[in-house]
Amino acid sequence: MRVLFAAPGHYWKAWAPALRAACPEVELCRDGDPAGFDALIYAPGYPEDGGALDFTPFTRARVVQSLWAGVERIVTNPTLTQPLCRMVDPGLALGMRDYCLGWAMRAHLGMDAYAQDGVWRNGQVPPLASARRVTVLGLGELGRTVALGLAGLGFDVTGWSLSGRPVEGIEVLAGPDLPRALQRAEILVCLLPDTAQTRDLLDAETLALLPRGAWIVNAGRGTLIDEEALIPALEDGGRHAVLDVFRHEPLPPGHPFWAHPRVTVTPHVAAETRPATAAPVAAENLRRAMAGAPLLHLVDRTRGY
Amino acid sequence: MRVLFAAPGHYWKAWAPALRAACPEVELCRDGDPAGFDALIYAPGYPEDGGALDFTPFTRARVVQSLWAGVERIVTNPTLTQPLCRMVDPGLALGMRDYCLGWAMRAHLGMDAYAQDGVWRNGQVPPLASARRVTVLGLGELGRTVALGLAGLGFDVTGWSLSGRPVEGIEVLAGPDLPRALQRAEILVCLLPDTAQTRDLLDAETLALLPRGAWIVNAGRGTLIDEEALIPALEDGGRHAVLDVFRHEPLPPGHPFWAHPRVTVTPHVAAETRPATAAPVAAENLRRAMAGAPLLHLVDRTRGY
Repeated sequence: MRVLFAAPGHYWKAWAPALRAACPEVELCRDGDPAGFDALIYAPGYPEDGGALDFTPFTRARVVQSLWAGVERIVTNPTLTQPLCRMVDPGLALGMRDYCLGWAMRAHLGMDAYAQDGVWRNGQVPPLASARRVTVLGLGELGRTVALGLAGLGFDVTGWSLSGRPVEGIEVLAGPDLPRALQRAEILVCLLPDTAQTRDLLDAETLALLPRGAWIVNAGRGTLIDEEALIPALEDGGRHAVLDVFRHEPLPPGHPFWAHPRVTVTPHVAAETRPATAAPVAAENLRRAMAGAPLLHLVDRTRGY
Repeated sequence: MRVLFAAPGHYWKAWAPALRAACPEVELCRDGDPAGFDALIYAPGYPEDGGALDFTPFTRARVVQSLWAGVERIVTNPTLTQPLCRMVDPGLALGMRDYCLGWAMRAHLGMDAYAQDGVWRNGQVPPLASARRVTVLGLGELGRTVALGLAGLGFDVTGWSLSGRPVEGIEVLAGPDLPRALQRAEILVCLLPDTAQTRDLLDAETLALLPRGAWIVNAGRGTLIDEEALIPALEDGGRHAVLDVFRHEPLPPGHPFWAHPRVTVTPHVAAETRPATAAPVAAENLRRAMAGAPLLHLVDRTRGY
């Protein structure tokens, strides 16, 4: 089986060893005659001349396996007629859990109060995690994983989702209870998707419901927060925001978030597809394609995902 | 029952409500006729004139309950003839777990790489916790709690203790295997007590065994690390140390640790006795003293603890 690794060149170093380990039977190529490939592993940005890939000459390809979960930049390519599969990386939820738990602990412990200025300030000891109220907005696969992880650390966790569908082990509030969910949130973790209902969910009015000194960790979508309203809400309430996602990425160098002392910017690293956990998923789909078996995570072109 | 709260004045605000909630039947006093008290809740620094407390006039006191776990400054008081009890606060291990897990996550996620300088650096995604090797030195109550907490976060945890006594759920190495325990430690958490065998355990030779880029979190005792050897070991190996304990506390304002970019100083806050969890322990002992029942955590004066 010959497979074209059709992704920007700098991915090769990390992905090639993982893919070779996951499917040693595959001949993984970086170029060659399009009609000679049985499948493509694809990420936008290939070819690197900036044009869209023309899938037409890949006449023998039985599957196009995306490296990423989001395929919005692929489904719109009119030359793509081969079956397209999204990446569903089991490491993604675990990586998100690491990120959210790590920043929640930083907020909880008040790490940023320990200035390295020679002054021994040991009067303020944080409460135990069990006395720290954390709210998680969004209880999809990522939100559930994070909420249960936070509960495992001992935090007093409440989840909130539009539907309010129960999650075993934590209290869940539904749509209209958003004010309650926010009022209790000493630490607020946002893991909602970008939909018409979630856009600007956190605006001047809802942000004002958070307790004084609250920390916001947004690893969901940049559109959840009204960026204009955020800085006044942080300044007025002694609050802090850790933001991994933005309306425009990369966040422009002159954006006020970069320099604001109450904002910590991380460069969209919370939920990254990882070769070690994603390559076996791609390998399984390559095998299924060759065997004529049903493909995993096949994209519905009319739905777009 | 009348009890004297014999502790420095600034403790009153946090402890009085917790003690009143834990033993509402007790009349908690800040002063009065020594002969009228049934018990003392005591912390060094009382009286605040700087002298040692004379326990002689407390003729009716059935117990002196220390607020702190360490009683080395109390057992040496020759006027103390009443039964003395140490504080064993169940919140202490939980607080230590919060501290060590929080700093381990900060190291793991490489949080300090995200300078707020307008540069979007998203090339480096941390591995999952399962691919991060963490070693915990010391597997007493605190070390076990922390090691199991780290394993619960998914880290690849190995413990080390002099005895090598097993801990269910993690690999344990014993005394002579210290080099193996250190060589694997991308994150090293130190929770050993101060004994003749642990003093300067981490010196130039053993510190050099740690991988390049390793993080050391010392929340055990300041004497575990040869302070002179530490800074060269950090500089040569691109390592970082988070230190909560020191040979001399408070750490003097001019100490090189304060200003060194590879050292983070926290002011002995990792394991603090907390009124909410400690007051019920004191309350139980007050009740036992009145009932003539065996006291909890009674200090053996010849052993000193």
